[in-house]
Amino acid sequence: MEKQKVAVIGAGSWGTALAMVLADNGHEVRLWSHKIEQVEEINTRHTNVKYLPEITLPVNIVGYSSLGKALQGAKNIILAVPTKAIREVATKISSETNQPVTIVHVSKGIEPNTLLRISEMIKEEIPASLLEDVVVLSGPSHAEEVSLRHPTTVTVSSENISAAEKIQDLFINQNFRVYTNPDVIGVEIGGALKNIIALAAGMTDGLGYGDNAKAALITRGLAEIARLGTKMGANPLTFSGLAGIGDLIVTCTSVHSRNWRAGNMLGKGQKLDEVLENMGMVVEGVRTTKAAYQLAEKYHVSMPITNSLYNVLFNNVDVEDAVDELMNRMKKHEMEDLVNVLDERMND
Amino acid sequence: MEKQKVAVIGAGSWGTALAMVLADNGHEVRLWSHKIEQVEEINTRHTNVKYLPEITLPVNIVGYSSLGKALQGAKNIILAVPTKAIREVATKISSETNQPVTIVHVSKGIEPNTLLRISEMIKEEIPASLLEDVVVLSGPSHAEEVSLRHPTTVTVSSENISAAEKIQDLFINQNFRVYTNPDVIGVEIGGALKNIIALAAGMTDGLGYGDNAKAALITRGLAEIARLGTKMGANPLTFSGLAGIGDLIVTCTSVHSRNWRAGNMLGKGQKLDEVLENMGMVVEGVRTTKAAYQLAEKYHVSMPITNSLYNVLFNNVDVEDAVDELMNRMKKHEMEDLVNVLDERMND
Repeated sequence: MEKQKVAVIGAGSWGTALAMVLADNGHEVRLWSHKIEQVEEINTRHTNVKYLPEITLPVNIVGYSSLGKALQGAKNIILAVPTKAIREVATKISSETNQPVTIVHVSKGIEPNTLLRISEMIKEEIPASLLEDVVVLSGPSHAEEVSLRHPTTVTVSSENISAAEKIQDLFINQNFRVYTNPDVIGVEIGGALKNIIALAAGMTDGLGYGDNAKAALITRGLAEIARLGTKMGANPLTFSGLAGIGDLIVTCTSVHSRNWRAGNMLGKGQKLDEVLENMGMVVEGVRTTKAAYQLAEKYHVSMPITNSLYNVLFNNVDVEDAVDELMNRMKKHEMEDLVNVLDERMND
Repeated sequence: MEKQKVAVIGAGSWGTALAMVLADNGHEVRLWSHKIEQVEEINTRHTNVKYLPEITLPVNIVGYSSLGKALQGAKNIILAVPTKAIREVATKISSETNQPVTIVHVSKGIEPNTLLRISEMIKEEIPASLLEDVVVLSGPSHAEEVSLRHPTTVTVSSENISAAEKIQDLFINQNFRVYTNPDVIGVEIGGALKNIIALAAGMTDGLGYGDNAKAALITRGLAEIARLGTKMGANPLTFSGLAGIGDLIVTCTSVHSRNWRAGNMLGKGQKLDEVLENMGMVVEGVRTTKAAYQLAEKYHVSMPITNSLYNVLFNNVDVEDAVDELMNRMKKHEMEDLVNVLDERMND
């Protein structure tokens, strides 16, 4: 495809890795960060050691500390900031761009209290006249591996499927395979809620419970995500795909995952405050647990793992008690749990 | 429940671990092996070092080398032998027992050429007058962890649900949680075919492709298993449960799994003969790949991972070429792959 100016907003590990994919495809990539020293490091040493220590960046990635300059002439904007910064950054983009743009968001979360998905938050901050399309990119994709050009598959989704196809063309290459899926709700919910299960999986590992227990937790976790997502209007099949079980597996079974690592420290007996301080990076799953707890109440969906985790994080319930209760409270007949997914779909 | 005489036929790692669960529940457990030295080791040193090196066996597990004596008075027989020994051992049970019995099989495979599931093979070998029920027990359960009493969940299934519930009562305890599922076909197909995906996952790991690639493979593998299973009459929801995705995850992501280990050696460039020799244990996935390849032809189901693996194992196709082709041949729209599962269900 034609080479383009693409702005990547946010130079954390995922933004930087995606900038590398775009650079490999020959695009003119502007990588924006609000930290001036980081922009200087990108432009002089072509590294980003805090987030991707092993990597040399292609020279067609240029760092910008001015958002306006980064956006100039860029029709496609990759928004790679933590969920809690989405509104602020979207507002700035809206005031700095002077043409309609497509926003591709790659973040994973749900806003507590408003209970909005990320694409919904973006639509609230950027007026329709400036927002051509919103696309979400999600799937099993550790940034570290993408930056090493290991084979990776992701899903892109948009209410306008031709926008998703345009973004598919922008990113796809030999190592980075991109698939489209029309189900925006399912892709966003799957991506957000897997972080909750990853926190819980880290806890069972921290407690030393082993792979059998973790596999059971992931299985019940997927059912719980699908139950909620289907009630919210998602296609249940999405949860069997890359942005559902695929992302859930990679996040729960890899030491790269910061949500798993945070859960692991909690399982070993550390307190939430200590864990968040030790991480030094955003742990999306903590905020998402609060939002998912509220969503379960709103939609009257049973979410035992979310519930237990909420109690550990916010009500000082002991980790081991919470996990043991989870293992013992499951129903006797497996289908009782699973069949709800389809039942709810049929009734909606 | 009442304490019973239970015969466990086969003293490999899984048979021994299940014997320990039954012994923990207070039953009189007879553990049969055709190897006299192993039976002596069980009865004198209370160990089984070849299969579970870290374990001391409870004293209410007694080793037997005489099948007739092991079966005497046992209404419930746990059949824990490799798939290719099922017919031979079932025939012997049929000639050594003099009362109708319930057979609980815990093996995972499909017979090449006949394409029968294990419960079907058992029914061919034991006359109906001696076979009260057949139950399958499956799920994410490494024997090593079960023997260490780590939390584990499994599914039991039978055409007669009250037989499944009876076996649930026999095994269930604080560490070993047992759920029932009426879908025998789904539980047996999920258990058998996960070994194929584990071999393939071992290969991508052996090639150094990383967690992103493996998660994609597991996701597509589950879709492939569900497509075939649904055509064969299974409930697609079973593949979202413990005997489906649960068992698949644990087998593909744990170094305990011998199918993963065999695939890993293949990925590193060893030949099949060398790998099987090095393992010294049965690798069920190799035979299952042949059977699944034949099933895909019979039921006209697309199974690209099974196909690629078949070519590596039996047609000398290079491992790296096969995996690369798999990564690149996927469809552009994710739903095309996934939606077949439900379509096929609706049309059947």
